Amino acid sequence: MMHKSKALLIIDMINPFDFEKGDILAEKANTISKPIKKLKDQFNKENKPVIFINDHYNLWQANLHKIIDLCTNEQSKSVIETIHPSEKDYFLIKPKHSAFYGTALNTLLHHLNVKSLIMTGVAGNICVLFSANDAYMREFEIHVPSNCIASVSDDDNTYALRMIKNVLKGKINPLHETS
Amino acid sequence: MMHKSKALLIIDMINPFDFEKGDILAEKANTISKPIKKLKDQFNKENKPVIFINDHYNLWQANLHKIIDLCTNEQSKSVIETIHPSEKDYFLIKPKHSAFYGTALNTLLHHLNVKSLIMTGVAGNICVLFSANDAYMREFEIHVPSNCIASVSDDDNTYALRMIKNVLKGKINPLHETS
Amino acid sequence: MMHKSKALLIIDMINPFDFEKGDILAEKANTISKPIKKLKDQFNKENKPVIFINDHYNLWQANLHKIIDLCTNEQSKSVIETIHPSEKDYFLIKPKHSAFYGTALNTLLHHLNVKSLIMTGVAGNICVLFSANDAYMREFEIHVPSNCIASVSDDDNTYALRMIKNVLKGKINPLHETS
Amino acid sequence: MMHKSKALLIIDMINPFDFEKGDILAEKANTISKPIKKLKDQFNKENKPVIFINDHYNLWQANLHKIIDLCTNEQSKSVIETIHPSEKDYFLIKPKHSAFYGTALNTLLHHLNVKSLIMTGVAGNICVLFSANDAYMREFEIHVPSNCIASVSDDDNTYALRMIKNVLKGKINPLHETS
Repeated sequence: MMHKSKALLIIDMINPFDFEKGDILAEKANTISKPIKKLKDQFNKENKPVIFINDHYNLWQANLHKIIDLCTNEQSKSVIETIHPSEKDYFLIKPKHSAFYGTALNTLLHHLNVKSLIMTGVAGNICVLFSANDAYMREFEIHVPSNCIASVSDDDNTYALRMIKNVLKGKINPLHETS
Repeated sequence: MMHKSKALLIIDMINPFDFEKGDILAEKANTISKPIKKLKDQFNKENKPVIFINDHYNLWQANLHKIIDLCTNEQSKSVIETIHPSEKDYFLIKPKHSAFYGTALNTLLHHLNVKSLIMTGVAGNICVLFSANDAYMREFEIHVPSNCIASVSDDDNTYALRMIKNVLKGKINPLHETS
Repeated sequence: MMHKSKALLIIDMINPFDFEKGDILAEKANTISKPIKKLKDQFNKENKPVIFINDHYNLWQANLHKIIDLCTNEQSKSVIETIHPSEKDYFLIKPKHSAFYGTALNTLLHHLNVKSLIMTGVAGNICVLFSANDAYMREFEIHVPSNCIASVSDDDNTYALRMIKNVLKGKINPLHETS
Repeated sequence: MMHKSKALLIIDMINPFDFEKGDILAEKANTISKPIKKLKDQFNKENKPVIFINDHYNLWQANLHKIIDLCTNEQSKSVIETIHPSEKDYFLIKPKHSAFYGTALNTLLHHLNVKSLIMTGVAGNICVLFSANDAYMREFEIHVPSNCIASVSDDDNTYALRMIKNVLKGKINPLHETS
């Protein structure tokens, strides 16, 4: 029953990493993609919701295949292969940093009766952090496993986790301690 | 220049019409699909934005093809063939009545520098009317051509048009008087 | 317990009625102010939330006294005297038609654990109707007692009630049948 | 003309500082209240908008006087005296961290034709930072003068300023370099 109320969010992991220092973030995304994948498999198996939330990449066409094609390159291939959306996973497109701004996420979570979010992805100090604050303002419980988010700078990532813990009252313990 | 700032919205026309009195609405949608198509062709030719906004049909997967497949049936086929999204058209999924609620529409319109909307589709007295009010609250100019929206009841449609004109300060003159 | 989850909304009743046909609406507002007052007394007595939601009148200063002063005139005096906010009533200012758009209403209702709204006030076919739709999209239960809303045109009021019943699944039975 | 489009936001400076480490923040708020006051005087003199945005303190009554009374104590007195709202200043109440969430701020800024924000107040790493991100998502230009925000921890304040500069493309130069 408790389980019913949890969702896994995967933020901006479908990503070309084609920006300044994108190569650094791609490598880190690769590292976190493994624990995220484990989490995703567990959620899929237990029929709990897995929700990808991704930048629009200037395609506003409700077309996840175009987005995945556009994002796939040498740098991103391994990440995208590891955590490719499954047939039943949800996939939302966001216009800005936050997963809640200009998206159906709040309605979808309400529809799924979700009260508690496991938030993962990149960049930890930008889209994950601002999504976490929007989740907090909407009164969701937050868990951001420290081994499931990454930022270009490790200091920034640490800072984001500290904010999530201290300001947004979120849990940040890494995955294997979760369950 | 003026042209730059206009967008054509096509609301819920990709639709299975599989609800009570859906057959009546399907027939009326068929009628309005012709002037909408004319408008859409003109917008496509002039490189002005055409934005489909459609119900989610409980698919939250950013997958317009699944939506079109799911919506296509004997009743809807003709409408969907007439105003099928073109390669460059935008396509947004909405979780509720209004085209603005829980969608990226406002951001997309801002990004396209659009100030003025031509709103078309079904049902005139529900999704079109409530979208028009949300557009009005966000201070867009509104034009709802009277021959481009339809409702199950003609009285309801007339009432919605009256509301749009009197309360939301929108234009409602039919298409051929537009230009 | 069930009671805990209900709130009474009073929309735009603090009003100068200084617009076209405002005199007509003032008279009708006067009529509905009596059953609204009865409802308000009952809510006050039972410690259930009463929430006034009112236009800003271009005062954006969180100052309900200025608003009441500005709204009080020969036409409005009787209405304002009848349903003046009590010491413990809530008072929110809205920037546009809908009681939810650009206001803290959703958060306040969540904080009060409210799931069900009794919506009253003016104009029935504008601010009440659009607020009701926004309530519906946020998945509140709606009750709009037919003797507690008014519009300039009685036809428009009847139409709004029909929409609230048929489209927004709201109850519209008048007050004395409620309880 | 350029001036017309700027507004000064003063976030959570009307504050009892009655939380953990509130005494530390009160002292820092006192320090930043001087440059904020200078800025406010300049805006008042030039008839440019000054907008206070403040927590609700569980008063949801559009009553800034009650809020000011409730916030005034030994610790806060000096800050509140220094930057008391003037007769013409705007005052909005926010339900959560961000100045945009559940408030009329976006509509008010649009109404005032504001495109660019000078953001000041406390806490720099919480309400100011999250408001700045919401401003960025709504495509406002941001200037957060480094001597006009404060956080309990100076490191957190520095980090917030870095985020505002690097991620939200905001200016952070201190006041006297502004003009």
